[in-house]
Amino acid sequence: MSFGVCLNNVREKSPLIHNITNYVTVNDVANVLLACGGSPIMADEPDDAVEITQICNGLNINIGTLNSRTITSMFKAGLKASELGHVLLLDPVGAGASALRTNTAIRLMKEIKFDVIRGNASEIKTLALGSGTTHGVDADKADSVSDKNLSFMIDFVKNFAKSSNSIIALTGAIDLVSDSSKCYVIRNGRPEMGKITGTGCQLSGMMTAFIAANLDNKLESAAASVALMGLAGELAFKDGLGNSSYRNNIIDEIYNMTGEKLDKGAKYEIF
Amino acid sequence: MSFGVCLNNVREKSPLIHNITNYVTVNDVANVLLACGGSPIMADEPDDAVEITQICNGLNINIGTLNSRTITSMFKAGLKASELGHVLLLDPVGAGASALRTNTAIRLMKEIKFDVIRGNASEIKTLALGSGTTHGVDADKADSVSDKNLSFMIDFVKNFAKSSNSIIALTGAIDLVSDSSKCYVIRNGRPEMGKITGTGCQLSGMMTAFIAANLDNKLESAAASVALMGLAGELAFKDGLGNSSYRNNIIDEIYNMTGEKLDKGAKYEIF
Amino acid sequence: MSFGVCLNNVREKSPLIHNITNYVTVNDVANVLLACGGSPIMADEPDDAVEITQICNGLNINIGTLNSRTITSMFKAGLKASELGHVLLLDPVGAGASALRTNTAIRLMKEIKFDVIRGNASEIKTLALGSGTTHGVDADKADSVSDKNLSFMIDFVKNFAKSSNSIIALTGAIDLVSDSSKCYVIRNGRPEMGKITGTGCQLSGMMTAFIAANLDNKLESAAASVALMGLAGELAFKDGLGNSSYRNNIIDEIYNMTGEKLDKGAKYEIF
Repeated sequence: MSFGVCLNNVREKSPLIHNITNYVTVNDVANVLLACGGSPIMADEPDDAVEITQICNGLNINIGTLNSRTITSMFKAGLKASELGHVLLLDPVGAGASALRTNTAIRLMKEIKFDVIRGNASEIKTLALGSGTTHGVDADKADSVSDKNLSFMIDFVKNFAKSSNSIIALTGAIDLVSDSSKCYVIRNGRPEMGKITGTGCQLSGMMTAFIAANLDNKLESAAASVALMGLAGELAFKDGLGNSSYRNNIIDEIYNMTGEKLDKGAKYEIF
Repeated sequence: MSFGVCLNNVREKSPLIHNITNYVTVNDVANVLLACGGSPIMADEPDDAVEITQICNGLNINIGTLNSRTITSMFKAGLKASELGHVLLLDPVGAGASALRTNTAIRLMKEIKFDVIRGNASEIKTLALGSGTTHGVDADKADSVSDKNLSFMIDFVKNFAKSSNSIIALTGAIDLVSDSSKCYVIRNGRPEMGKITGTGCQLSGMMTAFIAANLDNKLESAAASVALMGLAGELAFKDGLGNSSYRNNIIDEIYNMTGEKLDKGAKYEIF
Repeated sequence: MSFGVCLNNVREKSPLIHNITNYVTVNDVANVLLACGGSPIMADEPDDAVEITQICNGLNINIGTLNSRTITSMFKAGLKASELGHVLLLDPVGAGASALRTNTAIRLMKEIKFDVIRGNASEIKTLALGSGTTHGVDADKADSVSDKNLSFMIDFVKNFAKSSNSIIALTGAIDLVSDSSKCYVIRNGRPEMGKITGTGCQLSGMMTAFIAANLDNKLESAAASVALMGLAGELAFKDGLGNSSYRNNIIDEIYNMTGEKLDKGAKYEIF
């Protein structure tokens, strides 16, 4: 099945995705979910979150701006979604930057089976190694995937996918999406995307919708959403564009993406 | 009094509107309030909400992303605003989708006299019937107003307006705005507006400002805000536009709307 | 040192700024911080806020949509940042509009030494005089700085800077940025910026980054950020522009600003 078919399935099935996510980028997450063909809903009061997640197809847990109330919701809704066999994604924003974030992410991984964990290199390393040196919510340069350390990093994500029993999506200049046996190496996107807040959060929302609409092809559909985000970033770019217009243009390009365009523009290899 | 005069009154009086609203679409609500000539303020800590609402002209209560703290604020600020004779609007986001949302909306209606309740068909049906089958925060297709069920739905909103003693604004492909005796049937807008998160929330903020600036013409000014939102959606649309740019363009069109343009573009009948 | 050099230092050092800020404008604050060359992070759960602030260069405390939990975080993170010698900014959104906001701002000023306090005329007057008559979160017209009251207002901010031991940035049609001995009078900007929610919040985030990257020139770098915001507002403006596109264009202009353009476009005198 091609990436384009994965996208077409999202548009056709319009999965409803429950997002327990940070308030910094939540509006963009909602609009990106709508742009790709999904449908967003947000609820973060414990009782409400448990009930809302039951009418959804997937749950996207993003720990940016977590608090004690929303952490309770993450666990309660996460367990309920897991019980119902819904798609579950963890975005460990800032894992490694504080004990609360690191420990919450690690506890979530222990108690809930996530279909996929998506983060930058620092966050993923923190979760894999149990410690980290994170520069805020952005990845340390030392951690990033490059052609020099590519085969090392591919092994690293495959191993972490195996030990965590989740698909690992480590995104950055080069994106890696892997289960224990295969790894997609995706080279879409532009460095200027790092100057927009929340492209990672947006991708997490979208990836949850992709997997929910492609349950028999989880790895491929996760990779398809990564390629879509990056390709939209390429198509949306123009010289001299500021980061606010760039943000808007990327969402517009996702809205206007077709399966055919995605298949043509996606740049990836499988290892 | 024409819809255009209602708009001109908003621009002239610049009512200050207190919004206890969800964090997903709150920025757009603020910018839309500014675009139409009102002035926004947000406060959701109980003591602060009670005090802030006193310096305002209207209170917009939106239960999306409600939590136990903000629910307390909704009741306390709502009672204070009611006591002061301020305009009060309820946007029951997701009523029917969870017990907390349904029950909170119903309790709010019982304890506070709202000038208007604005929601989609699923939400309004839930409140009118005391139960519902809501697909997330978007209306079920089965619930939507069409030419086939129009006279039934007009009677339905008139009856609910009577029993609730509030203006009912049921918005969707066809919008109904009714008190117990009259019903505006408004046909502005485009289906693509459903691909933008929060156009309903934006309308609720704007509607509160419209009524606050037109106290002697509550029904007409509520209808005027609905026509304004829809007309802005028509003027903002271009083929090939993505949902992010469409969102921005709609707010821009509201900002640039004149009373004359609104009167010319509004499409409605009164039953 | 020129304003342009201040900007270049932000781009070079990329200070990481912790923002405890309102959820209305937080996304724009993050994108503006990225646009000027800084890096944003948000955390508002007490323990998390204390830890996150330690890896940052500055802390921006904005009391819009404050609640009991985030107030605790403001004090705890503020004291930790102060202890570590980080740059500290207070944005007293709505001081004068409610007791909770006024008292929280005054208590913060008492317990924490802020490098700079940035607000509109109503808010700054409230803090200086201990009382206020604020029209919501926007400045009263009676309070605004004009050529008529300019020398009075310059003395006022100098005196408040002395008594508070902080730089005072009072922004509006004419902006004043002052320590106890000097006052920058800045005349960049356009009145239409008042029709965008959160330009003040955005400026506060940016100002924290400017000071953090220019520790030996705090007053000048604070003034530079004010001029940058205003100049971006001038360059971004076109006739007929709506407030949503204007918001986006301003962020884009900040992203595309150079030190040279800033030095050329800044309009200010020093008193």
